[in-house]
Formats: sequence, C-alpha cells, structure tokens
Amino acid sequence: MKILVAKTAGFCFGVKRAIDIAFQIAREKRKEVYTFGPIIHNPQVVERLRKKGIVPIDSIDEKKDIKALIIRTHGIPLKISQEILSRGYEMIDATCPFVKKAQHYAKLLNKEGYQVVILGEKNHPEVQSLMSYAGSDAVVVNGATPLPKLKRKIGIVVQTTQPLEVLKNVLSGTLKLAKEIKVYNTICNSTALRLNETERMARKVDVMVVVGGKNSANTTQLTRLCEALAVPTYHIETASEIRKAWLRKANTIGITAGASTPAWIITDVEKRMRDIGG
Amino acid sequence: MKILVAKTAGFCFGVKRAIDIAFQIAREKRKEVYTFGPIIHNPQVVERLRKKGIVPIDSIDEKKDIKALIIRTHGIPLKISQEILSRGYEMIDATCPFVKKAQHYAKLLNKEGYQVVILGEKNHPEVQSLMSYAGSDAVVVNGATPLPKLKRKIGIVVQTTQPLEVLKNVLSGTLKLAKEIKVYNTICNSTALRLNETERMARKVDVMVVVGGKNSANTTQLTRLCEALAVPTYHIETASEIRKAWLRKANTIGITAGASTPAWIITDVEKRMRDIGG
Repeated sequence: MKILVAKTAGFCFGVKRAIDIAFQIAREKRKEVYTFGPIIHNPQVVERLRKKGIVPIDSIDEKKDIKALIIRTHGIPLKISQEILSRGYEMIDATCPFVKKAQHYAKLLNKEGYQVVILGEKNHPEVQSLMSYAGSDAVVVNGATPLPKLKRKIGIVVQTTQPLEVLKNVLSGTLKLAKEIKVYNTICNSTALRLNETERMARKVDVMVVVGGKNSANTTQLTRLCEALAVPTYHIETASEIRKAWLRKANTIGITAGASTPAWIITDVEKRMRDIGG
Repeated sequence: MKILVAKTAGFCFGVKRAIDIAFQIAREKRKEVYTFGPIIHNPQVVERLRKKGIVPIDSIDEKKDIKALIIRTHGIPLKISQEILSRGYEMIDATCPFVKKAQHYAKLLNKEGYQVVILGEKNHPEVQSLMSYAGSDAVVVNGATPLPKLKRKIGIVVQTTQPLEVLKNVLSGTLKLAKEIKVYNTICNSTALRLNETERMARKVDVMVVVGGKNSANTTQLTRLCEALAVPTYHIETASEIRKAWLRKANTIGITAGASTPAWIITDVEKRMRDIGG
C-alpha cells in the first residue's frame, strides 16, 4: 500500500499566524483572554488551546470577566469589533491578513458606489464579516443557486477559500445582469494550490482521505472536489476515525488536509494508516 | 419553401443614425464633404452615398479640398480627430454613441491606473479608435489566441459587436492573471439580440443566408455562429449572389443580416429567393 501526502496539506499562512498568536498568549499565562468564536475551524486545536486557558466564546455578553479577545482567523463583523473597543476590552487581531484585505475591498467597493456581491457561504463567519463592510445593498451568492436581481454597477469580493471555477461561473452570470463589474479576486493563493494538488492526487489514487474540521469550509471543499471525481473519499477529523475496510482494496491512498488542520493530526493519520494497512 | 427573416436583421441604432446624418448632408448638396473611411461596413450603401457626392477617404492627406469630414460609425483614433480639428476642417461626428461610450471607458480606465484590455479584432477601426484612448500599455485580445502577460490591475472594454460568450471566456482567463479586474460590458444590446435570434433561427432551418458587407465584423460573426451550428450558411452582400442550388433541398430558409445591412437589400434577397425557389 502506497500512501501519498499532499505537500499543500495543512496550515496556511493565516491559520499558522493566528495559532502562533493564540499559543503565545497562552504561554504568557494571561488570564481572562478568550477567542471570539473558534479561532480556526479545527476542534482538536481549539481543544488544545482550551486546556491552556484560551476558551472560545460566541458572544461578548457570554462572560463578565473579559480582559482581552483574540479575533478568529475568519474575522468578525464590524459592529462586534466596535462593541469590543467601546467596552474597553483589548482586541488581539488574529484575522487572516487576506481576509482583512477582502474586508477592505468590500468597504472600498461600497464607498465607490458599487452594489457589493460576496461570493461565499452565507453563514460562514468570514462572509458574515465581509457583509458588515459591504453596505446595506450587498448580497451573498454561492454559485449554486440562481443570481438575484443586481444593480447596473456591481463589485465582487470572494470568500478567500472559494474555488476559482465558482468565481468564473458567477462572473459569467453577472455579465448578463450588470454593465459595470469590478472584481477583486480575493481567493487566496494557498487555497488554489491546495485544490489543484488535491485534484491531481485524487485522479491517480484509489482512495482519498481528507483530514480537517467538519466545520471547516475549505476542508469540505476538498472533500466535495474528490467526490466529484468519483474516487471513494473519507472526511475525517482525527486518525481514530480511519476504518480498515476503506484501505482493504486500495493500492494507493492519498491524504490531503484543509488549511486549519495541524501537522500533528496529518502525521497521526498517516501513521495510523501504515499500522492498519500493514 | 418557407422563408424566415430575422426581426433583428439590419440597421442598428448607431448605423441608422450615421446614415441619416450622411444622407442629410447629401441632401444639402454641400461640396467637399468626405467620410473618414467607409461610414459603415456596407459597400452598397457607401456606393449610394458616393453617387450623391459623399466619398470615403482613408487619410486626411488624400484630398486637398476638404471642408468637412463625417466620422465613420466605428469612430477614429484620437490623433486623427485632433489633426482634423487643428487643420480647421469641420468634423461631423457620426460615431455610434455606444462606441463613444466605450472610448470614454477606455480613457477612464487608463486614467484610473488600469492596464486596458480591449476585447475585439485588432485591425477593426472601432478597436483602433479604442486603442487610441486606452494608454500606452493597452493590449488587444480576441478570445481565440492565448492572453498576453497582464498587469495585476486590468480594465476591460469590449468592441460593441463582440459576442457575450467570448467576453465570458476572456474574463475567466484574466482571473488567473490579474487580481483586480474592472469590466465595462460595452457589447451593445442589439448585437446580443441579433446573435440570439440568429442562433434560434439557425437551429430550426435547413439553410441560413447571412446578408451584409464582407468587411462587416458583426455580419461575419453571424456567419461564423451559423456555421458552428453545422447548418449550410451563405454570406452574401446582395441578392445577385444567391444560387439556385443552395435552395434546392431546403424546406425552410432563414435570412439574417448585420447591423450595417440596409432594409432594401434584405427585401431584395427575400424577393429573389421567392423568384428562384418558386
């Protein structure tokens, strides 16, 4: 049995940066520091941080003793940032710099008079944060459902983890509806590279194992991509989920992982596979 | 034999306007008035104007006795406009208002710091005129040959008679090369409607006859579209070119025509077909 591990699997720049910030705070043994939402979409990493005293909260009304808040890598809505500052809490911003850029472009497009169209998943925290900068006439589209009625002049920003193909399709669709379109392609490079490598890998293996948070959008994208290529695909969070039956008839197995999956989990998965597969 | 004539065949708004201007000048019997280039891409109309004393010239050095110049519907390069004015000739501007708009956007994009990408046919006078407004780093792309290296920030304008499908493809391609893209979809509505009706018609007839100047870009587009649908297609300028053999086995024949084809030629073609086809 041959096991291939994607070179692009695991932490991207923004996630690594956010985790470094959070663990640094943990090392300083500061009290009453929380993360706003899970800092990244990986329950195992969030759990490790919790054990070190950095706990996620979903609302600033949840705790009374807040001293500082670490902002999740996906960013938070503008109103919440303002509320955090107005309450005098320290804000430790671990928002991915690429998400910050997308927020900036959403704000700029709105200021320039464009109706902002955000391509992404409506309920994803990154998209929620982008919405808060995009003005009252902004809309979210996901590339799967039909486009809404749009104004003549639209500006597009993209959730950083969307596939380029979806942007291409949405852009083609908007061409029929709007006369002036300004696009900031805010898809981050590591997303594109990871999707490309995963696609190439999935085409040559018998089984794909995708490792990462079940709540991770980009990990789910990887799973969907492999499934679309009709290769048996399993999305797991940790090595303990691997079943011997998956590997039985496989000569070659591919492992890929989302941007929020830590290296130690990927190594565990590979090791467990070798143990089971013999 | 059933003959269908496309409702969208023939003069568009901009061509009708230019022809009205030119024939009005002819009626005024003014002397030493020329058109810069053929006013529209239809040799038969240009010939009718010539007989009324309005002759096309290709260069302002061609004649010594110029009093006034009618600017062709496709527009002319900025430098030539300036030269005409500096020589004190009267300029009668019959440029299509939609082409004027595209010129304006090319200029605006350049001013805003975008590398201007013009989608169209490099040697077409409309594209030549757009180029003159688009700045020194502007490039022309045609959707068929690979895209050149582009800057990070590009602005797209489109020759008014290009098909939307080509714009979609070019836009998808530029997404890989540029991070910020501003598109003015300057394809004129009548082009889109004509292409759509022609496509629907070509799908249900046995033979398509496309009427219009051999030098007309949008007529050639119609021909190419029909050919791509694998229906026998004939591009003619006048009724005299129709051959009986084309109609022999056809139950239904479709007639469409470019934006620069006058109604009298379309009527002639239909009449001649009925005469031949019985």
